[in-house]
Amino acid sequence: MNDLTLRFHFLKEIEKLKTVTRGNRTLDDRFENSAEHSWHVALMAVLLEDYSSESLDILKVVKMLLIHDIVEIDAGDTWLYSEDQADKQIVENEAADRIFNMLPDSVAIEYRMLWDEFEARVTDEAKYAAVIDAIQPLLNHVLTGSPETGVIPVKQVMSRKAFIKDFAPALWGHVASLIEESVEKGFYA
Amino acid sequence: MNDLTLRFHFLKEIEKLKTVTRGNRTLDDRFENSAEHSWHVALMAVLLEDYSSESLDILKVVKMLLIHDIVEIDAGDTWLYSEDQADKQIVENEAADRIFNMLPDSVAIEYRMLWDEFEARVTDEAKYAAVIDAIQPLLNHVLTGSPETGVIPVKQVMSRKAFIKDFAPALWGHVASLIEESVEKGFYA
Repeated sequence: MNDLTLRFHFLKEIEKLKTVTRGNRTLDDRFENSAEHSWHVALMAVLLEDYSSESLDILKVVKMLLIHDIVEIDAGDTWLYSEDQADKQIVENEAADRIFNMLPDSVAIEYRMLWDEFEARVTDEAKYAAVIDAIQPLLNHVLTGSPETGVIPVKQVMSRKAFIKDFAPALWGHVASLIEESVEKGFYA
Repeated sequence: MNDLTLRFHFLKEIEKLKTVTRGNRTLDDRFENSAEHSWHVALMAVLLEDYSSESLDILKVVKMLLIHDIVEIDAGDTWLYSEDQADKQIVENEAADRIFNMLPDSVAIEYRMLWDEFEARVTDEAKYAAVIDAIQPLLNHVLTGSPETGVIPVKQVMSRKAFIKDFAPALWGHVASLIEESVEKGFYA
């Protein structure tokens, strides 16, 4: 297959991300899927860039967020508060091998490196992308209620979201108020 | 409201885009919504950039595509082959006034200008974004069948998609083969 055909095969493959559902709800009472979540975080990243502590390569951040969940086509979405975080890494690595390798070599390598960088959370771009990926579900919960798994203890929410304070202190105040708002509505206990 | 609160209000508002459905289907047999469509086109734009005839500000293209359908929160999605294209413009303009003006002034102006630029299809970035936005439904049809409205005459498809040949000749060959594939499957007549 030629370069362009490979790219289109990949673009057909990722149609499947629209069928990968998350624990969260939408306003029309479906489960949110990982494709629409990815759109939301990509635009959030662009809009909140001014609140990052570091100067960022924002195009790199957006690319990261557009591809960050593609592995879920094979691996499914793992709920943040579940116990299966170890297995998750193995299955997602295999998924990354399969799906990114559908692309022509140079792009396959670029996307795999971007995904690895996102997962490692070491660079400023990856840290900021992780912050955005962690804020979006909080914003979603305020609007659509608790995730399917039911009311989450607010202590658990705070412990999983605390890294936002270190990575993006300028956003933390608003994030804390989103969490409070969900507590008041009875979505976190 | 302060700058950050305004931005978060906008980010809450656009949750609604996940409820705006298009004529197309998904692999799990829902109607595709404009949020997941926006994700798909943003990533397509990044991946197919090498096939653009012009050198592009790709970050600008991606921003355009991330926001291009937000007006549909008020206006709904208008099917490409429908008769209501004139009304569409009026309603979408009002929607752009309302929704982008939720943002702090500087961003409101930037996003409105980006959206106007996209709609006008004069700059290289807008032309390329329009090409991508026109290819994605073709790719989707091949995978999920005819849109809800039923089988479309292939002549009509060709006439609405012909601009791709002028704006992105390097992509046209593959686009034509996508259309052919849908004809063979009986999705276009």
